[in-house]
Amino acid sequence: MMDRVDIRYLRRPEEVGLESPVMIEGLPGIGHVGKLVADHLVKVLEVEKVVELYSHHFPPQVMVDENGMIKLPKNEVYAYKSDGDSPDLLILVGDYQSISNEGHFELANAYLKIAKDFGVSRIYTLGGYGVGKLIEEPYVIGAVNDESLVAELKEAGVKFENGEPAGGIIGAAGLIIGFAMLEGIPSACLMGTTSGYMVDPKSAKVVLEVLMKLLKLEVSTEDLEERAKEMEKLIAQIKEMQEAQTVQFKSDEDLAYFR
Amino acid sequence: MMDRVDIRYLRRPEEVGLESPVMIEGLPGIGHVGKLVADHLVKVLEVEKVVELYSHHFPPQVMVDENGMIKLPKNEVYAYKSDGDSPDLLILVGDYQSISNEGHFELANAYLKIAKDFGVSRIYTLGGYGVGKLIEEPYVIGAVNDESLVAELKEAGVKFENGEPAGGIIGAAGLIIGFAMLEGIPSACLMGTTSGYMVDPKSAKVVLEVLMKLLKLEVSTEDLEERAKEMEKLIAQIKEMQEAQTVQFKSDEDLAYFR
Amino acid sequence: MMDRVDIRYLRRPEEVGLESPVMIEGLPGIGHVGKLVADHLVKVLEVEKVVELYSHHFPPQVMVDENGMIKLPKNEVYAYKSDGDSPDLLILVGDYQSISNEGHFELANAYLKIAKDFGVSRIYTLGGYGVGKLIEEPYVIGAVNDESLVAELKEAGVKFENGEPAGGIIGAAGLIIGFAMLEGIPSACLMGTTSGYMVDPKSAKVVLEVLMKLLKLEVSTEDLEERAKEMEKLIAQIKEMQEAQTVQFKSDEDLAYFR
Amino acid sequence: MMDRVDIRYLRRPEEVGLESPVMIEGLPGIGHVGKLVADHLVKVLEVEKVVELYSHHFPPQVMVDENGMIKLPKNEVYAYKSDGDSPDLLILVGDYQSISNEGHFELANAYLKIAKDFGVSRIYTLGGYGVGKLIEEPYVIGAVNDESLVAELKEAGVKFENGEPAGGIIGAAGLIIGFAMLEGIPSACLMGTTSGYMVDPKSAKVVLEVLMKLLKLEVSTEDLEERAKEMEKLIAQIKEMQEAQTVQFKSDEDLAYFR
Repeated sequence: MMDRVDIRYLRRPEEVGLESPVMIEGLPGIGHVGKLVADHLVKVLEVEKVVELYSHHFPPQVMVDENGMIKLPKNEVYAYKSDGDSPDLLILVGDYQSISNEGHFELANAYLKIAKDFGVSRIYTLGGYGVGKLIEEPYVIGAVNDESLVAELKEAGVKFENGEPAGGIIGAAGLIIGFAMLEGIPSACLMGTTSGYMVDPKSAKVVLEVLMKLLKLEVSTEDLEERAKEMEKLIAQIKEMQEAQTVQFKSDEDLAYFR
Repeated sequence: MMDRVDIRYLRRPEEVGLESPVMIEGLPGIGHVGKLVADHLVKVLEVEKVVELYSHHFPPQVMVDENGMIKLPKNEVYAYKSDGDSPDLLILVGDYQSISNEGHFELANAYLKIAKDFGVSRIYTLGGYGVGKLIEEPYVIGAVNDESLVAELKEAGVKFENGEPAGGIIGAAGLIIGFAMLEGIPSACLMGTTSGYMVDPKSAKVVLEVLMKLLKLEVSTEDLEERAKEMEKLIAQIKEMQEAQTVQFKSDEDLAYFR
Repeated sequence: MMDRVDIRYLRRPEEVGLESPVMIEGLPGIGHVGKLVADHLVKVLEVEKVVELYSHHFPPQVMVDENGMIKLPKNEVYAYKSDGDSPDLLILVGDYQSISNEGHFELANAYLKIAKDFGVSRIYTLGGYGVGKLIEEPYVIGAVNDESLVAELKEAGVKFENGEPAGGIIGAAGLIIGFAMLEGIPSACLMGTTSGYMVDPKSAKVVLEVLMKLLKLEVSTEDLEERAKEMEKLIAQIKEMQEAQTVQFKSDEDLAYFR
Repeated sequence: MMDRVDIRYLRRPEEVGLESPVMIEGLPGIGHVGKLVADHLVKVLEVEKVVELYSHHFPPQVMVDENGMIKLPKNEVYAYKSDGDSPDLLILVGDYQSISNEGHFELANAYLKIAKDFGVSRIYTLGGYGVGKLIEEPYVIGAVNDESLVAELKEAGVKFENGEPAGGIIGAAGLIIGFAMLEGIPSACLMGTTSGYMVDPKSAKVVLEVLMKLLKLEVSTEDLEERAKEMEKLIAQIKEMQEAQTVQFKSDEDLAYFR
């Protein structure tokens, strides 16, 4: 039987033995910025899957992979045991957020339960901040559930912009740090500015760089960089096309005098 | 963990020690009339926050303030201990109503539970009554859950208009006095007439004045008055523009004969 | 506190002492046919209100009556103790059906609980069958949860029309006799044919007449008759207007030859 | 009372005594392909109805049959005891899927409970795969919850097409094999390609043929064949009409040169 929100521990938290880990959340959202960063960490770090989470609040369907194998909608939590300066990590990734309003709250309860079961000392939720136009130099804006975090984040390059995002932070990235506030876990949301029109590895790269500073973590960013370069080419092409059009419009205007 | 409807007492009702308080509800609604009045009372009276209420029925998001601090959607209850003629007060304020139909009922249950825990003797819910046109002289219409209240309300200037509002009273302002009827708490809804097109401090002011009479309470209304005056200027400008347009239309009509 | 579905007995069923009563349901629906009939019975018979039913599945609002008194959405059950040939009756009336799909099922559970608590021996649900055009001579079609009822209903003038209504019977009128089937209570739905465009007392009158035959009950039908006559006048006017328009269209067509 | 998901065993599984049966699911869906196949099996095999399932997640209405008898929305499970080479079968049929997202999950839980109560050893869910154009030679594509099934299915003629269906498998056919994966029951979904525009007995026939191979079961396919032939005639007519139109378009184009 699958519960409405069904947390399945593949290993018991005390067995995994993380020490006051930092939780990183990167679920789908604006520009898939958070998801790109968290998926990248799972790929480049030596991690172990410790939790699978199923829910009635995910879409009622299964996906089919290239071998004909089905996949039930689920999110996953990976554990990373640090052997360096960085803290241990607990990384929440997956392809789904709730498709109902109430489900967002029930899932946030679950994510916090997992965080507490693993003794999480801090949470960073990751996301994109859609600004509605192409961004050449993306940067990271922050929101915190504890004012004492602001100075540290600013030092790592995070900007705080007078109440931005004005529309609030919707879904898991917002509710998780909200619920963490109720539980007394200092947490922040890191949002990479992005157009909001496309998956944005360039924005993800700047979020990852901020995150590495905050975590004193060194990982290869090659994969994201490559995808970011491809995207820059794409942006360049789009701009070229836009400029060509603008010129065209202008010459149309010029001609207008002669008509 | 956050419950579907999560009432968090910051202080135990018996510790706060209100004596048969009157509950005032002012949540967002038509013209934000009720919210303006209740927020004003919290601002000008010496109050103490005694309850925070979270719910899965609020929007699944957090807002961000000017310092980058997040705020979870929540409503709040403030206690006011009177040292004069007026009764003690329990003031329900906040930025949210339920976003689902069923949630309205679950939240009304919670508001009544709080009322009963504090031994509330009467409830006034506040709101706006949208009439679809600009109102020069707003007044207050009432609805009660106990006919014996009508005379007292009329004396304080409340009008009862033959079944108005015809569409009923939707959301917390209506359900709270409905649920109070089931609990035997005599209660009324005070609605300031308003256009329904904009936040209306002028309507809020007349509601506050009626409420002060009912509660034998004296508070400064300066803040609302000032905002009301600004609004009157705005209305004057709008009217001027409308008249200018009407004149324009007329002269257009005149010209039509010559075309 | 109000439960999701909140049944409040004003008197205990065993106190009321009905003998194997027949339940009549007349809630709002197509042409308000069922509601008109059930409300009429409550008006002309000497009845006693025995149950009030509140629910989170009704609209989240209160209505206001001519005296400024509010009314919470609720349905009601009235008991009628027969002193003649007719059986005792349990009449379910009210202004509301569920506003959610699931709520319809939860409410039907509640209606059946009440039926069983009162030892109901049969249920007639009443409704309209919308046919999409004006009906001069409305009649009653039936649907049963027990084939043995068909002969008796036919004798009382009920027609069975090969699977009509083709779209099924939606809401309380359908689910109640469906749930009654699971409980072994023989039941039928009586539907007066009606346009579906307006409240239809003429259709209600024919349903009432069939019901009186089935129940060996004699009640005045004056009230419905009067309203039916008014409605016939209205229909006559509408027809006249339609014919006038048709003539107009024809003469327009004739003129077309000359243009 | 009817529970949200209400499983009613007409006979206890241990009484029915099926031996490691294979479950077949054929509920309504694309082209009604799965439903046609499962209904056909119930018709041509000697089966016994063993479960009726009601739910608040079905539409809130009853249907009326040709005799005026009502039918509550329900799904049914039939048992087939094999006397030949084929395994015993448990066939899930019905007219309904959930009308809410969460309901799909609750119903899948119920279907798996039934499967486990009967000791099911494998599940085949049946469906259509809509391709958006008329299909002359429908075939069967598969998806599995256990890679070891692929070889066997391929041998029976099932194709695996690189991640198709790209949109996933929605509703019962997908969730049942997903939930079965969590329970360790090897299962597959068999989808007949179909236009998606109409009920498709021709596609159902090819799914049935694959299923018979997989089950070592011999049943008459006459009924589906006949309906498939009628459908082929219909397709032929549609094509003729389409070609006629194409010709018309072409001659219109030719004429264009002369206008």
